[in-house]
Amino acid sequence: MNIIQGGVCAATGFKANGVHCGIRKNHSKKDLALIVSEKKAAAAAVYTTNLVKGAPLLVTKRNIADGFAQAVICNSGNANTCNANGIEIAEAMCDLVEKQVGVAASDVVVASTGVIGQPLDITPIAGGMDALAEGLSAENGSAAAQAIMTTDTVPKEIAVEFTVGGKVCRMGGIAKGSGMIHPNMATMLVFITTDCAIAPAMLQKALSKDITKTFNMLSVDGDTSTNDMVTVLANGMAGNEEITAEGEDFTVFMQALNTITVSLCRMIAGDGEGATKLLECIATGADDEETAKICAKSVICSSLLKAAMFGADANWGRVLCAIGYSGAKVDVSKIGVKFRSAKGEITVCENGAGVPFSEEIAKEILLEKEIDILISLGDGAYGASAWGCDLTYDYVKINGDYRT
Amino acid sequence: MNIIQGGVCAATGFKANGVHCGIRKNHSKKDLALIVSEKKAAAAAVYTTNLVKGAPLLVTKRNIADGFAQAVICNSGNANTCNANGIEIAEAMCDLVEKQVGVAASDVVVASTGVIGQPLDITPIAGGMDALAEGLSAENGSAAAQAIMTTDTVPKEIAVEFTVGGKVCRMGGIAKGSGMIHPNMATMLVFITTDCAIAPAMLQKALSKDITKTFNMLSVDGDTSTNDMVTVLANGMAGNEEITAEGEDFTVFMQALNTITVSLCRMIAGDGEGATKLLECIATGADDEETAKICAKSVICSSLLKAAMFGADANWGRVLCAIGYSGAKVDVSKIGVKFRSAKGEITVCENGAGVPFSEEIAKEILLEKEIDILISLGDGAYGASAWGCDLTYDYVKINGDYRT
Repeated sequence: MNIIQGGVCAATGFKANGVHCGIRKNHSKKDLALIVSEKKAAAAAVYTTNLVKGAPLLVTKRNIADGFAQAVICNSGNANTCNANGIEIAEAMCDLVEKQVGVAASDVVVASTGVIGQPLDITPIAGGMDALAEGLSAENGSAAAQAIMTTDTVPKEIAVEFTVGGKVCRMGGIAKGSGMIHPNMATMLVFITTDCAIAPAMLQKALSKDITKTFNMLSVDGDTSTNDMVTVLANGMAGNEEITAEGEDFTVFMQALNTITVSLCRMIAGDGEGATKLLECIATGADDEETAKICAKSVICSSLLKAAMFGADANWGRVLCAIGYSGAKVDVSKIGVKFRSAKGEITVCENGAGVPFSEEIAKEILLEKEIDILISLGDGAYGASAWGCDLTYDYVKINGDYRT
Repeated sequence: MNIIQGGVCAATGFKANGVHCGIRKNHSKKDLALIVSEKKAAAAAVYTTNLVKGAPLLVTKRNIADGFAQAVICNSGNANTCNANGIEIAEAMCDLVEKQVGVAASDVVVASTGVIGQPLDITPIAGGMDALAEGLSAENGSAAAQAIMTTDTVPKEIAVEFTVGGKVCRMGGIAKGSGMIHPNMATMLVFITTDCAIAPAMLQKALSKDITKTFNMLSVDGDTSTNDMVTVLANGMAGNEEITAEGEDFTVFMQALNTITVSLCRMIAGDGEGATKLLECIATGADDEETAKICAKSVICSSLLKAAMFGADANWGRVLCAIGYSGAKVDVSKIGVKFRSAKGEITVCENGAGVPFSEEIAKEILLEKEIDILISLGDGAYGASAWGCDLTYDYVKINGDYRT
């Protein structure tokens, strides 16, 4: 498994592009992305569990119901959610793709991200299609990654190379997500492409299984978005024998997918709105996986712990407090807590009580950009990781006046 | 039901005081409170559901297991939680009360609030007892209210007068709470006193019923504290016939209690860490009470909505989003949203979609200090309220470096 360049176009047969079409006021910000596969691809997706669902999700769900898709169109700047004509606009976006690049509208994945509840005008999108299609290229994955950004400060892309059935396969992905991130059975916008041949049912199985340990263990602010979606397109152009069941090939595919999704999770958490630090909470010693997940996620979601991490304050009591109210059944008297970073590791709590430690060394460790919070829950064999970020002045600033 | 002066000493037979004994470094901040009833009182309490429980809660639970208590001692500056000798120290605090004012240690409610996981030294408390007892007076309820404050910016006290069985009764309360507030079946520190005669079982019933609509509908930051506790002492000195069953008297008692608890909820929410605004979300039109409660609380807990309120931004999409992920079963297409304050009321969403509104008027309404978020969920007959506050730079500042 090697990390490679190329992002969402790393896999054979995928082209992409991103342009500024005018949905966003700022001309220097791209706002329309297109990804096209040379061949029709197996498609899988997971969606937000929010009862309020963006119109594009409903159209996408219908379009990939047969297990296949060939293109992705996505705009930023407007979520096309809670609008009376949302479905109509999402369908119009698919029609524009058909007209421009010849992929059937019913094979298009459509997504929107941005402000909720403001009508989305199709005019700038229609006006931008020529430039968008003209620039489609296997070298323009980064343009697509840029065009789906909202409050993200950096584009998020990753790709890997792996071998299935003796054939070299590639998989890449892009993601957007910075605020309103607390996925629950689905997540922010993530588009993954691969040339590995895999049956639609197995692709969906791989994705649904993977997100329970990746995107569902990620939280920036506890708010589950209305437009979350992760999709994978697998066009089979690597030439491997199609994966149609579990087995060695499926395991390798799952590993490749997990490498992509964990990388994107870390990128999203580290670029959380206003974040200065990427936090990873690693729970071990649990009696079952669910307990480890609940504890790790509760810690990563605690506003108080997040603020303490911003201040590089080794306030481990807040870690215990968050485990205590998580709902997980744990023996508090067995809990241990350590903080770790590139500067080292420090034990701050053992057997549910504080241990003497150097505040100076703790501060030095916590001033780093990437912090691991290690919680040991007992003698059990299960563990889990969750990702998040610190809570900062800038989170408040960004969200105090997002619309205007 | 009249609001009166006197706080926790408004009821006949209660004296209180608060002093600086030295737990807190800042000499201008009181850190030790004592409330004493002339007669033994019926006692009821509810406690945090956090699995990590402060040692004082365990001692209090044991002491009021027989349904009676006569005094409350509470320190601020240290939570006496996650300490190896926590129980020992909490018991020593009760012993000090017995020695100083003659109330049996087993009739003392003991509480602590402050940093978790730092050993609590009994020395300053023992040293402060003389001054604490000397100043006990029916005029010093405010001193007790001050002594239990941590990051609170204002003391919180309230009292009411009501009539039961032809006798004038009084009830008063004090509260502390500003951060780590997301009560769940119990809440921050609240001490309520009354001279109304009521049997312990009925007192517990009244309290347990009340908090489901008051303190459990309050959230500052989503973190459920380890030391939350609400206690009520009822010494019967008003001379009314003891309330031993449901009926008219019990109903009046419940109303008095509710007036106290709603007032304290509003004070706590309005003084939330860093808060500039008190938010109340009022849900109506639900098919059952639980649905109304879930929706109101989800809105009040949303970091994004809280930040938008800080910025006086009428971002109603975040209200819909929070209802959508709350887990409540609602018909999104029926949801309406209005914002209201002393400056007026504005409709921003009807039937699940945005309606045109004046951003200027919305801004004017949202610039006020007290904001109501009115959500209409349909044609049902049930409603609920939840209280919270905005998310501000100062919340981050306060919690980025709380310990040092």
